[in-house]
Amino acid sequence: MSSPAAAPRVGDLSEGAILRTILERLGPSRAQVGPGDDAAVLAAPDGRIVATTDTLVHGPDFRLAWSSAFDLGWKAAAVNLADVAAMGARPTALLVALAMPDDTPLSFVEGLADGLRAACDALAPGCAVEGGDLTVSDTLTIAVTALGALDGRDPLLRSGARPGDVVAVAGELGRAARGLAVLFGRFRDASGSPVPVDEAALSADESTDLARQLRPSPPVGLGPVAADAGATALMDVSDGLVLDATRMATASRVTIRLDGSAVGPEPALSGGEDHALLATFPPEAGLPQGFRTIGRVEAAGADPVLVDGVVPAGRGGWDPYRDWDATRG
Amino acid sequence: MSSPAAAPRVGDLSEGAILRTILERLGPSRAQVGPGDDAAVLAAPDGRIVATTDTLVHGPDFRLAWSSAFDLGWKAAAVNLADVAAMGARPTALLVALAMPDDTPLSFVEGLADGLRAACDALAPGCAVEGGDLTVSDTLTIAVTALGALDGRDPLLRSGARPGDVVAVAGELGRAARGLAVLFGRFRDASGSPVPVDEAALSADESTDLARQLRPSPPVGLGPVAADAGATALMDVSDGLVLDATRMATASRVTIRLDGSAVGPEPALSGGEDHALLATFPPEAGLPQGFRTIGRVEAAGADPVLVDGVVPAGRGGWDPYRDWDATRG
Repeated sequence: MSSPAAAPRVGDLSEGAILRTILERLGPSRAQVGPGDDAAVLAAPDGRIVATTDTLVHGPDFRLAWSSAFDLGWKAAAVNLADVAAMGARPTALLVALAMPDDTPLSFVEGLADGLRAACDALAPGCAVEGGDLTVSDTLTIAVTALGALDGRDPLLRSGARPGDVVAVAGELGRAARGLAVLFGRFRDASGSPVPVDEAALSADESTDLARQLRPSPPVGLGPVAADAGATALMDVSDGLVLDATRMATASRVTIRLDGSAVGPEPALSGGEDHALLATFPPEAGLPQGFRTIGRVEAAGADPVLVDGVVPAGRGGWDPYRDWDATRG
Repeated sequence: MSSPAAAPRVGDLSEGAILRTILERLGPSRAQVGPGDDAAVLAAPDGRIVATTDTLVHGPDFRLAWSSAFDLGWKAAAVNLADVAAMGARPTALLVALAMPDDTPLSFVEGLADGLRAACDALAPGCAVEGGDLTVSDTLTIAVTALGALDGRDPLLRSGARPGDVVAVAGELGRAARGLAVLFGRFRDASGSPVPVDEAALSADESTDLARQLRPSPPVGLGPVAADAGATALMDVSDGLVLDATRMATASRVTIRLDGSAVGPEPALSGGEDHALLATFPPEAGLPQGFRTIGRVEAAGADPVLVDGVVPAGRGGWDPYRDWDATRG
């Protein structure tokens, strides 16, 4: 039994009061002008800025029965940090546009802010939330923009892979998809609606899989490392290795041959949301620590991607407009 | 009677196909790396970048019965361009995160892209959409991030107003609120639901008011002009003059005295969404063309803002968590 004063909802509060609550939890700004003015002013030391945006929407992207506010803040940060890293860049700032129902508890906003901060601290030290926007919406939506610095490096595009290059990956493949399978397979009621996770019912492996689904840990720091090691192409594996390798092969006008035993069993080939980094390196370059070889680039053949010499079955990945599972919660 | 092929919906199409449709309408990229990779790479010529984000949500921020797709694209761009201008900066790029129901017609996405491009061309030539994100959502949501360049200027904060400064404004005050009143007063059915606007039923003045509500035209180019003219503070009037002047006065620890006859009759004092620029200039500086004097800065008194020497009635502005009108449509 909590009184309204003890458990305030955002609809009870002014925008300013909600903002103050968030800002207190985000820690000190590192920007030239941080939150509170019309816009932030951020350093772009080498005269360029890397910028990307990615949104989490209640329903297609998460269910509140499964994800805590902390999880959502973490994930919203992590997926954007990975996109900055995938250019060979160092994340420097996030902007967070938060649209939420007016009955959202203030404690949810607090947890979200904590998750955003924790992900920045763990994955991209020095990066912080430096601006944002609050709006009312029927659908909880977290739209994050991440900015980053190249520090004099050339940006790593997905179009740079060349025949003869080694194909390598840093980070995990398939764990987040296994975690999603745990949720869909084990934590829904008879009608298919999500029910809270019973951690005690999970094996240690399942627990790790679930953690990777809810709080992905992309190897953000390895983006600039790949650039320094001479990588020719780099991208984030967000929609599944085969689908994203197909995008890289198409952009680079090459064929990518993957070694199934190096990649590992499904869902390593088709599972999304791990946000591993897929890279190509010249054959003479040594792979930097954290990357492992999973294939080879060849001149363009009939198919953009082959796994053990064979065209992979299915589309091998996730498309939000084709594959949306309508389960909500 | 249109066939599915003649009137495709986004749920019928792949993310790639929707993206191609959007990109074709946005025109050429001006970025070092434009749309299509994990992130964009943009020039930040003086080693700094201005960054802001603002979201339009179906329900609280717009109704589809009243706003066309073009209107929404225009407005989503305009409100963000105004925030960049309000720092004294020149907008250089937008990122657009679009979350929409899967039954959204592709023609809606086309209209939105056209509106984004038209607003950039009209309000901030040289600025273009350079990245974005597509997601499925029950609630149509347009989250835009705008980036800008200071070109060597100091950023203009809302905290810089000094006693003795002239208070000035560029752009219109109250027209967007009058346009909103036209919509709420004249174009709802007996149950209060929005119905389409009958342009023929509007006077010329009402038509202009409505156009300003649906497609605001902030004086974006005057942000850098104010900086060059020596402005001490600058901000975007998005929530109403009195409320935003209160924010400036509080941040600057001063009192702002407004001259009611210079401001004009209500809703010029309390109406939001015009995105005029509120500035302060030293008394010795001449006002640049486009700005008009509306008041004077004094040492902090008991109240942050006075209108003709009197504390203004009400809060004088808009707060999304307090003032949300629940009308949807």
